[in-house]
Amino acid sequence: MLGRVNHIAIVVPDLGKAVASYRDTLGASVSAPQSLPEHGVTVVFVELPNTKVELLEPLGEGSPIRSFLDKNPSGGMHHICYEVDDILVARDSLIERGARVLGAGEPKTGAHGRPVLFLHPKDFFGTLIELEQV
Amino acid sequence: MLGRVNHIAIVVPDLGKAVASYRDTLGASVSAPQSLPEHGVTVVFVELPNTKVELLEPLGEGSPIRSFLDKNPSGGMHHICYEVDDILVARDSLIERGARVLGAGEPKTGAHGRPVLFLHPKDFFGTLIELEQV
Repeated sequence: MLGRVNHIAIVVPDLGKAVASYRDTLGASVSAPQSLPEHGVTVVFVELPNTKVELLEPLGEGSPIRSFLDKNPSGGMHHICYEVDDILVARDSLIERGARVLGAGEPKTGAHGRPVLFLHPKDFFGTLIELEQV
Repeated sequence: MLGRVNHIAIVVPDLGKAVASYRDTLGASVSAPQSLPEHGVTVVFVELPNTKVELLEPLGEGSPIRSFLDKNPSGGMHHICYEVDDILVARDSLIERGARVLGAGEPKTGAHGRPVLFLHPKDFFGTLIELEQV
């Protein structure tokens, strides 16, 4: 079921500082920031040869990553996103095997404009997993 | 400087359960466990099309991931490993830019038999970064 690692998401408290660090200190290629108010985040992409890292900063008071930052004020790794061919087939198979899908269980449109679902981190050893249909 | 994401490392409290979950629930290809006593871990590789996830369980009392599991009893994402061409050039460049290398600053032989270094997570927004020379 799991396809490519689409991205690894890292929440940071200050996107400007994080961009400078990844670009200037680590020498990576970093995109311009994109504000996604409907997702409550501002994001930049660190482009690696085989996948990407997404640096996320909370945007707005209702940001879904605000509580993560409250618990981890320095920031930290937030989730891994895997690609799947068919998100409904993946969801149904996962539920059949006892995994829990976050929210109402219906795919939402993710930050890349494609259907996504999140799986409960308690079912996967503390790792929040995003599935994205590509 | 940063090349491919070589792997994403996840610490788990029970490798057998984690293997079953990634293989049977998530439908991924998972390698046989390898005990690496000199690194204090038992590891399996979850093979994805573009990179891999390493599931790590502590091995022995002096395991370097024991304290992580004490703080995160369910497990969690532990580090990201990026490939670099020349680890000494990378190290010197990072130190010049103010980043801290963990330990004595000399590369060690990592779990894949290649030179590795770890960077201080406080310099990279709570993310532990491993560099591996390939």
